[in-house]
Amino acid sequence: MFGKIKVRVLDSTKYAKKLGEEDPRRIFHAVKVGIAITLMSMFYYFKPLYHSFEEAGMWAILTVVVVFEFTVGGTIAKGLNRGAATLVAAGLGVGAEYLGNACGNKGEPIILGALVFLLASVATFTRFVPRVKRRYDYGVTIFILTFTLVAVSGARASQIWKMAYERLTTILIGGATCMVISLCIYPVWAGQDLHNLIATNIGKLATFLEGFGGQFCNYSADGEDKSYLQSHKTVLNSKANEEILANFAWWELGHGRFKFNHPWKVYLNIGSLVRECACQIETLSGCINSKSQVLCEFQQKIQPSCVEMSIESSKALRELAEAIKETRFPSAAVEIHLQNSKAAAEDLKKIMENSSLPTIAGLQEIVPILVITSVLIDIIKFVEKISTSVEELSQKAGFKQRNKQAQVKPVHDHVVIDVIEIKTKYSPPQI
Amino acid sequence: MFGKIKVRVLDSTKYAKKLGEEDPRRIFHAVKVGIAITLMSMFYYFKPLYHSFEEAGMWAILTVVVVFEFTVGGTIAKGLNRGAATLVAAGLGVGAEYLGNACGNKGEPIILGALVFLLASVATFTRFVPRVKRRYDYGVTIFILTFTLVAVSGARASQIWKMAYERLTTILIGGATCMVISLCIYPVWAGQDLHNLIATNIGKLATFLEGFGGQFCNYSADGEDKSYLQSHKTVLNSKANEEILANFAWWELGHGRFKFNHPWKVYLNIGSLVRECACQIETLSGCINSKSQVLCEFQQKIQPSCVEMSIESSKALRELAEAIKETRFPSAAVEIHLQNSKAAAEDLKKIMENSSLPTIAGLQEIVPILVITSVLIDIIKFVEKISTSVEELSQKAGFKQRNKQAQVKPVHDHVVIDVIEIKTKYSPPQI
Repeated sequence: MFGKIKVRVLDSTKYAKKLGEEDPRRIFHAVKVGIAITLMSMFYYFKPLYHSFEEAGMWAILTVVVVFEFTVGGTIAKGLNRGAATLVAAGLGVGAEYLGNACGNKGEPIILGALVFLLASVATFTRFVPRVKRRYDYGVTIFILTFTLVAVSGARASQIWKMAYERLTTILIGGATCMVISLCIYPVWAGQDLHNLIATNIGKLATFLEGFGGQFCNYSADGEDKSYLQSHKTVLNSKANEEILANFAWWELGHGRFKFNHPWKVYLNIGSLVRECACQIETLSGCINSKSQVLCEFQQKIQPSCVEMSIESSKALRELAEAIKETRFPSAAVEIHLQNSKAAAEDLKKIMENSSLPTIAGLQEIVPILVITSVLIDIIKFVEKISTSVEELSQKAGFKQRNKQAQVKPVHDHVVIDVIEIKTKYSPPQI
Repeated sequence: MFGKIKVRVLDSTKYAKKLGEEDPRRIFHAVKVGIAITLMSMFYYFKPLYHSFEEAGMWAILTVVVVFEFTVGGTIAKGLNRGAATLVAAGLGVGAEYLGNACGNKGEPIILGALVFLLASVATFTRFVPRVKRRYDYGVTIFILTFTLVAVSGARASQIWKMAYERLTTILIGGATCMVISLCIYPVWAGQDLHNLIATNIGKLATFLEGFGGQFCNYSADGEDKSYLQSHKTVLNSKANEEILANFAWWELGHGRFKFNHPWKVYLNIGSLVRECACQIETLSGCINSKSQVLCEFQQKIQPSCVEMSIESSKALRELAEAIKETRFPSAAVEIHLQNSKAAAEDLKKIMENSSLPTIAGLQEIVPILVITSVLIDIIKFVEKISTSVEELSQKAGFKQRNKQAQVKPVHDHVVIDVIEIKTKYSPPQI
């Protein structure tokens, strides 16, 4: 019995340690919430100091518990929503209360009931509007709550103004405490998270293409590392997460390299392109198993071009990911790698035009590699689109300019580009 | 000025009407929430009847506002979470309060502060555990809130037991009101929604393949309907939604054809397969534009097989979607259609083995159609996997059995299957 409990406790401790090690900000967050709640409860506890708060003091605790989110943006969003909704709803509630009073003792409950029903229903319905749902969902909840409480309880307490003042002050104190602690102690910025997520996802595509190109070279090695095959899977399902982060980021103050009006929408566009590209990669990963193990002459001929396309695309993506991570314009290397991969695609076309198939029976055998070629060509198009979007992002977000003389080794002898010009304005690649 | 306001009001009304028409359950939900809140506030308003509730009455309103969710499952989840968390936290809070009292006047705030900090931090940290986040997130919030309020306010009010009793009763009344209204007036079941979503998504894949097969026949028609090209796009991003619905469905009582322990997890598996298949379809839709408009002899030869594969897969998927919608075992038609599409794939192989290419230069030209063939063959594999999963679902969920003599016309002359046996046990298709 005790042995079992001991094992479970040990397991839980291990798991908690793992969770904390994966992202230490989780531990900081837990401690921050603990500090905020303890502060509020002590503030409430030592009533002799703040006599006027008494009952209302619990609103401060309630505010902290509900408003404190993991990211700064989330906390600000909920705090402002709560504050604004309370103000508006309290105003309307007092109005409803006066209206009810004017209707006499018998009319009051009817008027108040009707108003509560009407406002609660309409407000609940607005939550189905996507824009409201995205930004003001919490505000609408608080609006309904406060309006009902003020309208109805006002009918009982004649000191409605005093109550409203107390409640607003405590909510303000609670909200402000959350925001200050969230901002000052190890802040977690939703914007930074979104920024990193997009860069990481682009990096994951690069990892796949790198691994894919590598495997192409050593065809029959069985024991090789196939972990790269999974790297793009999480990218496919990142949409919901990206949208939540972008919504929270919208509320955040400028921080570090991100201004208040950072173009968060462009990140969502890039994310969507990256997912489409990941979809192509999913098809590619399906082809790996159906590839024949013995190469015919034709396959041997086109293999180098495929490897080239894969590796060069991967390098272009890697540089884009690095550029985002370092908040700078992508270097000219991206275009060089894109050029190289396109040159490889052109080579491929020529080979296919000039080569002869051994027998027509070979057609069946070379289908997988033809599919790979075709998908790789599509992937190059996506890499180009992603590159355009990242350029747009760098422009709109005011990222650091490229170095005057970008130090890029021409990696392919087809294309030699002199990299001396500085791109100062955003222009989509004309290639 | 007034004109502008009029236009905006009219626009909003139109938009609201559209939202309501899209899903009339939204209007019912808004009205239901209105009724619940009005009931609670009137209950609170007529204090002479329920004298003992006074201040605590606001907890009933708060509970309704926060707990009432769109789906029955969501409401039950939040209601039970709130109830259970309040009970546990209140118990611990009273314990903490006694402990504090035992430590004397000076020790009390220190002990209470330390306990609040510790429990708030640990509880916040547990919210990062995925399983807790999924099922008990709201409960943890309420736990922190209640524990803090009871521990700290208990230090002030000596009538802690009376307060706890009042608060629990009001929360119970609020929660029960929500659940009863949510269950009795036009209930929205998360489980039913998930069930329909999965069926609709499978149907969307069928729509695409149907349209794709159709377009293959009339190659050069420019003005044709291309709306089917978009039908699979929403499927790709349905994961988050499916998971939310499955979590809520887990809490729901048995309703209609769904038992309490309905295999919701199987729906998630099917959803994941459907998304993978949608990914293949995304690749397919990319091929449509690159298809050459004039057909060479080879393309003309393999076109019928491609159409056959596409149309037969689409029919199999359509039947699977229908079967799920009608909560019955998929009919034998699925297997016949699968057989037909496989037969078409076999035909294709033979054609490719026996046909001769006009010139080797033609290889470049036929790559798009070869990619289409290859992807279609992959899609057949996915349809088969989806079919297996749907069989598993029908088995585990106890769907209606097939008719004794399934009435299926053999749609393809390659395969003639006598459909007389009744499948009573789940067995993966052996084809």
